[in-house]
Amino acid sequence: MTAEKPHLKVKLGENNYGKAEVNLMKIKRDTARHEIHDVQVRVAMTGDFEAAHVHGDNTDLIATDTVRNSIYGLAKEGFQGSVEAFGKELLAHFVKIGPKVTGGFAEFTEHLWERLPTADGQGHDHAFVRQMPKRTARIETTDGQTFKVTSGISELYVLKTTQSGWEGYLLQERFTTLPETNDRVMASYVTCIWEYAVDTCDYDDVWGRVFRQLQTTFPDHYSPSLQNTLYHMGEAVLGACPEISRIWFQMPNKHHLVYNLARFGLENNNEILHVDPEPYGLMEAWVERAE
Amino acid sequence: MTAEKPHLKVKLGENNYGKAEVNLMKIKRDTARHEIHDVQVRVAMTGDFEAAHVHGDNTDLIATDTVRNSIYGLAKEGFQGSVEAFGKELLAHFVKIGPKVTGGFAEFTEHLWERLPTADGQGHDHAFVRQMPKRTARIETTDGQTFKVTSGISELYVLKTTQSGWEGYLLQERFTTLPETNDRVMASYVTCIWEYAVDTCDYDDVWGRVFRQLQTTFPDHYSPSLQNTLYHMGEAVLGACPEISRIWFQMPNKHHLVYNLARFGLENNNEILHVDPEPYGLMEAWVERAE
Amino acid sequence: MTAEKPHLKVKLGENNYGKAEVNLMKIKRDTARHEIHDVQVRVAMTGDFEAAHVHGDNTDLIATDTVRNSIYGLAKEGFQGSVEAFGKELLAHFVKIGPKVTGGFAEFTEHLWERLPTADGQGHDHAFVRQMPKRTARIETTDGQTFKVTSGISELYVLKTTQSGWEGYLLQERFTTLPETNDRVMASYVTCIWEYAVDTCDYDDVWGRVFRQLQTTFPDHYSPSLQNTLYHMGEAVLGACPEISRIWFQMPNKHHLVYNLARFGLENNNEILHVDPEPYGLMEAWVERAE
Amino acid sequence: MTAEKPHLKVKLGENNYGKAEVNLMKIKRDTARHEIHDVQVRVAMTGDFEAAHVHGDNTDLIATDTVRNSIYGLAKEGFQGSVEAFGKELLAHFVKIGPKVTGGFAEFTEHLWERLPTADGQGHDHAFVRQMPKRTARIETTDGQTFKVTSGISELYVLKTTQSGWEGYLLQERFTTLPETNDRVMASYVTCIWEYAVDTCDYDDVWGRVFRQLQTTFPDHYSPSLQNTLYHMGEAVLGACPEISRIWFQMPNKHHLVYNLARFGLENNNEILHVDPEPYGLMEAWVERAE
Repeated sequence: MTAEKPHLKVKLGENNYGKAEVNLMKIKRDTARHEIHDVQVRVAMTGDFEAAHVHGDNTDLIATDTVRNSIYGLAKEGFQGSVEAFGKELLAHFVKIGPKVTGGFAEFTEHLWERLPTADGQGHDHAFVRQMPKRTARIETTDGQTFKVTSGISELYVLKTTQSGWEGYLLQERFTTLPETNDRVMASYVTCIWEYAVDTCDYDDVWGRVFRQLQTTFPDHYSPSLQNTLYHMGEAVLGACPEISRIWFQMPNKHHLVYNLARFGLENNNEILHVDPEPYGLMEAWVERAE
Repeated sequence: MTAEKPHLKVKLGENNYGKAEVNLMKIKRDTARHEIHDVQVRVAMTGDFEAAHVHGDNTDLIATDTVRNSIYGLAKEGFQGSVEAFGKELLAHFVKIGPKVTGGFAEFTEHLWERLPTADGQGHDHAFVRQMPKRTARIETTDGQTFKVTSGISELYVLKTTQSGWEGYLLQERFTTLPETNDRVMASYVTCIWEYAVDTCDYDDVWGRVFRQLQTTFPDHYSPSLQNTLYHMGEAVLGACPEISRIWFQMPNKHHLVYNLARFGLENNNEILHVDPEPYGLMEAWVERAE
Repeated sequence: MTAEKPHLKVKLGENNYGKAEVNLMKIKRDTARHEIHDVQVRVAMTGDFEAAHVHGDNTDLIATDTVRNSIYGLAKEGFQGSVEAFGKELLAHFVKIGPKVTGGFAEFTEHLWERLPTADGQGHDHAFVRQMPKRTARIETTDGQTFKVTSGISELYVLKTTQSGWEGYLLQERFTTLPETNDRVMASYVTCIWEYAVDTCDYDDVWGRVFRQLQTTFPDHYSPSLQNTLYHMGEAVLGACPEISRIWFQMPNKHHLVYNLARFGLENNNEILHVDPEPYGLMEAWVERAE
Repeated sequence: MTAEKPHLKVKLGENNYGKAEVNLMKIKRDTARHEIHDVQVRVAMTGDFEAAHVHGDNTDLIATDTVRNSIYGLAKEGFQGSVEAFGKELLAHFVKIGPKVTGGFAEFTEHLWERLPTADGQGHDHAFVRQMPKRTARIETTDGQTFKVTSGISELYVLKTTQSGWEGYLLQERFTTLPETNDRVMASYVTCIWEYAVDTCDYDDVWGRVFRQLQTTFPDHYSPSLQNTLYHMGEAVLGACPEISRIWFQMPNKHHLVYNLARFGLENNNEILHVDPEPYGLMEAWVERAE
């Protein structure tokens, strides 16, 4: 046992527990044109878990194995629509059945699959190919009845070969050696999450609109900085989605460095680049509605 | 350009930018017995960056390339001790030189290296082998002069083959199928971070004491739950480190499931186990000082 | 020094050296519609490197830093078409300039980018989004003049929700507990490489034909086993590509297991599945032309 | 169905199938001082599988699920010693029970765990901490009775801060810009595999001797090149292990580049380095016994 510390007073602070990386696929088979949801789920419960932590008393605790079973079991009758709606169902369930559970959160990473191509252009009825971007969601509650929802997109890797620069920054500084440029490659591996101005909405439709705005806004302007493009993307999303109150971006600046070919007597007009894995500029910002 | 939205009012919210994944090694060579620091650094700056985001005006912004140069440059004269102290130096520097910078944060992941073994047991003077656990730190400031420091340990993978159970939980529940046990394998891939009760201290020494407490407390008791062991570990750390005000753990329960050999007419007394990669129970909690 | 071993006779066996993970982007900018190649390159040289290994004599060795420079430098004038053609250029170069180099191999992993969508359906002129599947190639030579080429596809994740089964296998066996099924989900993360019946060809065009055959053949039949589908895919590729002499597939059977909901009084008609990360069936086979 | 290709003649080439990423832990509990094996196993079978591939006929095939069950089941009575010996048991079993199986291979990656420290220095009886290097093995048979064994070490990350250089290479070459040095940091992430001169031996003991030789030889000399150090390490292993016929190394040269601080008016005597993640020099070689 740990040594007696007669004067040591210790208590449990904020805490949660649950199950992570529950990989669930739900297939809708009611017509010949199947639909799939492929999600990784984490559910964490909050509540009065002091007895377990401090005294080793597990009375009335929900086992994390039960959390797993419940996710699969509830997906059968529930999970008819978006991950956001399913997250609310899950959390309401755990608050209801758990004697000591008062709230919690559910997190989803949804793998996106496109239908395999067919001659008629409609895509295959039951065969799919995995896509790279992911849909994310986080649902939180403190009472099992009201929910804070955030949704997101991750692993969206976009690049443009021109119409981007970096000029006018602080140049007279000891450690500054970077030359200015008005034509560079700009690339980012976009992560974003957004909050809602409404209690509920068509989450699938909103996600689709955000995704389209990111794809069309990223290249539609000369970018003086990744920060400015980030802001444009946020502005476009808020314009297209009245349901959204604010949106956060994490955008690494994946540097594509012009390789020094002058040493070998060769010109390099932005054609031959080193795709540098590290370090990268990293920008994070919320874009919000102003009154 | 994005379509005109005459009535759309948008503003910049909380934001930061800087450089991530700066991989720095510093070698102390003043004696034949070399010492190394091998760190991955992220520095993010906060301040008034609205002009860049909203208007594309980069005036007086520090380039992230300069952040990188500064980390290497300042490591030469500075970085004489812990990553925590170096983080303070870095942030004070950026607040000082950046016309628009008012604060920021620095994050470190330090790879740990042990000296290669020698016949005399002292370890090699200049040859090392990488270890698995990592040391982490985060330093934050809003003024460049006062700092909030958190330190941590990650990727510490511990396992015990007995003296662990899971009993007495909520059993009469629709989705509950797990049987109780008073003898199971318990394993976790520990991440923890702690906050300080003091403005500064010998961060290296504290880290070493925490690391030892985790290693000795994890196995020193019968564990009725991972939550209880987490709490014991927190209690032991607070007992050994008066400098620490509270400590947070994230401990996945890496399940080692007894494989069903009865189907083949074989006994399995907790000998043959499936090391299940997912899902895993996931526990998070702060352990704090009580008054 | 290592202890003297007077009777130990040791020699150098097969060996190579070079540079790996050279990340190169080449952008064709001659018209407003830019084109990009985004490749990770490894070049390894073979030859008479005994002096360096055995005696520490580096005379006339090409530095691996020079290999890197050469890849970027030669990409400027060369690399006008496929990675396969560029690989030949690279190897011919190193055999020519390296006094001790007689052959080698080049390996490419090409990241694929699609044009971002535009209203006219033509895709953006200079903005792109990263795709998940990758194009691979390996070029080998022993003389710098003749080359063995293999090309491939990797990270193609396909899934079908029906038209797959697994029946008629060895059932009366001690460790066999799996029930037969004629309707299951089948998914695989396909890797394939192919060899050529010709010395050179339009490698880009062949790659496109293979990619289409994989996408159309995977779902076009009832699959009695992943092995049979693998064979169908190989057959289709050989039918569509006279340039190819044989093709090898590595196809994991990414199991999607029907979750046992009967325990909770729920039906599960192949709707609710556990996407099991491990273990997976793993099939490897060559499909070849018969005389 | 795939289109009829009346003149297309296709056949099955070399092929195998089995189960991969089977994660097995075996615990020896016969005394209070427990011992653990934590292995990831792949088993692939070879034989006459043409009917399954070509005609969709699975008669007498062993299901990969059965392979998994067999690995766990056979581990109960068997797997008393090394992974190499267990691999032989597994392959002999599958050749014996599989009507169509004539051979195959088994691959192991063994995670290494050290006992947690105790006051008496003996290490804990039943609590362990995961180490970074891994033990690997591959066992192959074509008859189920005779076996070719290779064993290995991977993820051994070693570094020395001095006693390494790179000089005397080909300097007068168009793309060569690297300056010579006689004092640099040398680091490598070592992978090696070895073959045996004997049919069987104490595989655990051999592994321990190899591991020690790598650790002591890497730093014990001035290294004129990674190739030369590789050769020294091979020579030391062959000297210490008469059971081994030859050993192969793959050693990336993990570059630690002196950061250019002169631009900022600072000296850098090999103290401040950029740990470059890519590209890296990559050396591969066999070191063998000469007659």
